[in-house]
Amino acid sequence: MSYTRNNITDPICAIATAAGIGAIGVIRVSGKDAITLVNKCFTGKNLEKVPSHTLHLGKFMDGDKIVDEVLASVFIEPKSYTGQNTIELSCHGSPYIQQRILQVLVQQGARLAQPGEFTLRAFLNKKLDLTQAEAVADLIASDSEVSHKTAMLQMRGGFSLQIATLKEKLVNFASLIELELDFSEEDVEFASRPELRELVQHIYNLISELINSFKYGNAIKNGIPTVIAGKPNAGKSTLLNALVNEERAIVSAIAGTTRDTIEEMFVINGIMFRLIDTAGIREHAADSIESIGIERAHEKIKKASIILYLFDALTTTPNDLSNELMLFDGLESIIIPIGNKIDLGDEMQIKKDFKDFKEVIFISSKEKVNISQLTQRLIKIIENDKVNNDIIITNIRHYEALKLSGEALESVLQSMKEQRSGELLAFDIRKAIFHLGEIVGDISTDDLLTNIFSKFCIGK
Amino acid sequence: MSYTRNNITDPICAIATAAGIGAIGVIRVSGKDAITLVNKCFTGKNLEKVPSHTLHLGKFMDGDKIVDEVLASVFIEPKSYTGQNTIELSCHGSPYIQQRILQVLVQQGARLAQPGEFTLRAFLNKKLDLTQAEAVADLIASDSEVSHKTAMLQMRGGFSLQIATLKEKLVNFASLIELELDFSEEDVEFASRPELRELVQHIYNLISELINSFKYGNAIKNGIPTVIAGKPNAGKSTLLNALVNEERAIVSAIAGTTRDTIEEMFVINGIMFRLIDTAGIREHAADSIESIGIERAHEKIKKASIILYLFDALTTTPNDLSNELMLFDGLESIIIPIGNKIDLGDEMQIKKDFKDFKEVIFISSKEKVNISQLTQRLIKIIENDKVNNDIIITNIRHYEALKLSGEALESVLQSMKEQRSGELLAFDIRKAIFHLGEIVGDISTDDLLTNIFSKFCIGK
Repeated sequence: MSYTRNNITDPICAIATAAGIGAIGVIRVSGKDAITLVNKCFTGKNLEKVPSHTLHLGKFMDGDKIVDEVLASVFIEPKSYTGQNTIELSCHGSPYIQQRILQVLVQQGARLAQPGEFTLRAFLNKKLDLTQAEAVADLIASDSEVSHKTAMLQMRGGFSLQIATLKEKLVNFASLIELELDFSEEDVEFASRPELRELVQHIYNLISELINSFKYGNAIKNGIPTVIAGKPNAGKSTLLNALVNEERAIVSAIAGTTRDTIEEMFVINGIMFRLIDTAGIREHAADSIESIGIERAHEKIKKASIILYLFDALTTTPNDLSNELMLFDGLESIIIPIGNKIDLGDEMQIKKDFKDFKEVIFISSKEKVNISQLTQRLIKIIENDKVNNDIIITNIRHYEALKLSGEALESVLQSMKEQRSGELLAFDIRKAIFHLGEIVGDISTDDLLTNIFSKFCIGK
Repeated sequence: MSYTRNNITDPICAIATAAGIGAIGVIRVSGKDAITLVNKCFTGKNLEKVPSHTLHLGKFMDGDKIVDEVLASVFIEPKSYTGQNTIELSCHGSPYIQQRILQVLVQQGARLAQPGEFTLRAFLNKKLDLTQAEAVADLIASDSEVSHKTAMLQMRGGFSLQIATLKEKLVNFASLIELELDFSEEDVEFASRPELRELVQHIYNLISELINSFKYGNAIKNGIPTVIAGKPNAGKSTLLNALVNEERAIVSAIAGTTRDTIEEMFVINGIMFRLIDTAGIREHAADSIESIGIERAHEKIKKASIILYLFDALTTTPNDLSNELMLFDGLESIIIPIGNKIDLGDEMQIKKDFKDFKEVIFISSKEKVNISQLTQRLIKIIENDKVNNDIIITNIRHYEALKLSGEALESVLQSMKEQRSGELLAFDIRKAIFHLGEIVGDISTDDLLTNIFSKFCIGK
């Protein structure tokens, strides 16, 4: 897929709504001649003569056969999503009919759109910058309050604005340095070095903050990988159910979006936790300490950000627990030990026994005792990663460009410290500017665009 | 679910596009106050002040939080699908966002629509008659050229028109008879009996024709149940593949619609055959004649309209075939004996051996020899059921109403023959009219409407 400039105006078409049977389906057509093309298959009104942003009921025809009664939304350039003439045909939601309409459009000279091609055109026609275009895909994939909010903020330009501000400051700085270079024989300093150092340091700090937000951003975008581990009969399934039920309304609201994996999603305070099913782990486990060792070795546990280590508070001694927890030493995950089944024992006595384990939460997953204490702990862990900035990086491409930009700035600071030449300063600053520019798409290559837009769904 | 008249104007909302992630999703809101209600959550323009059939970009808000940037299509009553004020919100195709928008609409006083409730309102507001409303559901479910064409014809009123014509003729007849009754003491005959007999006979014939079309109509709507039977190694799977591949383009076009069963669909000349997987049958089969008996007994074979009986033309003798075919005696299905593997033998000799079996088709499913001869035979069988009428009954409700109407007319003919009283004639004619009226919805009960519309998808 090559995004050369010569094929960004030809008419493209795609089904824009989800696959499957629905009440209605929407087919999008965009391109210089999109309206003329659709008009050839549309009876009821001359779509070439209607104003932009109007709706027209008519018949979509294949020659003299009626394919469907459709509603055509007409958008005249530049007032459309892509910035081009665009028609959206709302038809009956039969996959058969939608395919037939596409077939007729293709016969008339339209081309089936590639994934993300409508949004690519929007980008190339400067309706969106690159981060905003990327946010469109994130927005479509968003499945929790926080991931939705972050994508929305990015799509509405919040992130671009911050990058643009940083960039502008750097450009001013670079200009002054480059001015000095022009007057290099006279050994002037237009840019006060202490002030400039402070500015670069400030920008560097902001970039670092954005870089740091990626951990949180990535977690909220993809869900926080969380594992419930523990010996057989510790009550893992019951805890899973208790956690999922705790927020049933929200879970069922996103039910349609659950990915095709063995993971359960649950959302607390708008943050999604991806509860990794330990069924596969469980089947290896015998009722011995060794079994935890097997579990520990398991890839899934290694990948988890949070491990909920469940133990039976009635049958486990503090000494047992110490030994069991030692098996998680060296993992980067955060371990939350959870003593279960306190409804069956003397809660006061149990807490006394385990008084040396400050971090243990005692619950009854069966009777739903203290589950909210656990969910609050989970939220607290995530909020700790949250940085003091509304803008959160969720995209690895941005993360990497920011890192390269940050490295260039680090190099600037180093050069200033060592009083290196202005040429070197200017070079590194331009490098930092370049990488910031990459983020919003000031600089983009076909490869980069292909890579970004091919991840979109068809029809967007 | 009760369709009482007092809740047909309150604002209802539903996702109208298919479930899952798409580029865009559409949420439909209809009701007297639909525009006012949506306007409360929409910034960018006052939707209450815009003309009908216009599109408006804006933000859909939950209080001061932006839920999404949406495109609002405004339809002012009566110029809308339901005949009521309607707004369609086109949003980003994230199930999360769609759910959030619904939540906000419900908070603002809208109600989640029941299946088919938009179309029910269209019916109650006389935008569609009942057969047309039913055709909407058929159209959405249509997955082949012929089922699509039939549903489209019905939605566009072809069937209603034919029913209306029949009905009008009967009403005229009834009026004359009733006029006679008013003058009964004078023993007049306004309606010439021979002419009337001819008319009733004519209408009766038309109704019978429609009734007869149901067999074909039902087949094209649901696909023609077809089984490939035969001994192990006769080449059943290869034939299945050959048939499905024959029309691959069309099969893949309807791939999204394949039902969740073990059936394969294939389409020849726009007619869908539902090839019932005989895997379950095969597992019982041993390589003996008895195995065919087991198969024969099998429910699936009994339900099939067509049985493709495959035999190995090299190893089966004409005598064997006679015996094997006898096992299908008494079934209503049409049996097509198919001699396979002619590529491995002497085709001329084989045909000579089986010269007494005129109906056998000789093929090689492996080398795809004579597959088109088979598909043509299949088409011919279906076309034989086709009646000499553009209008085809596909709906069992219509079929039953037509049958009741036909029975009443039969009774009329009988009464005339026996010269019974005009009262009796009038009664039976009114009965026939009543049942025809049921079809288009002149007469409808809440139960009937509930039954029809509850089969719709949500959002339509």
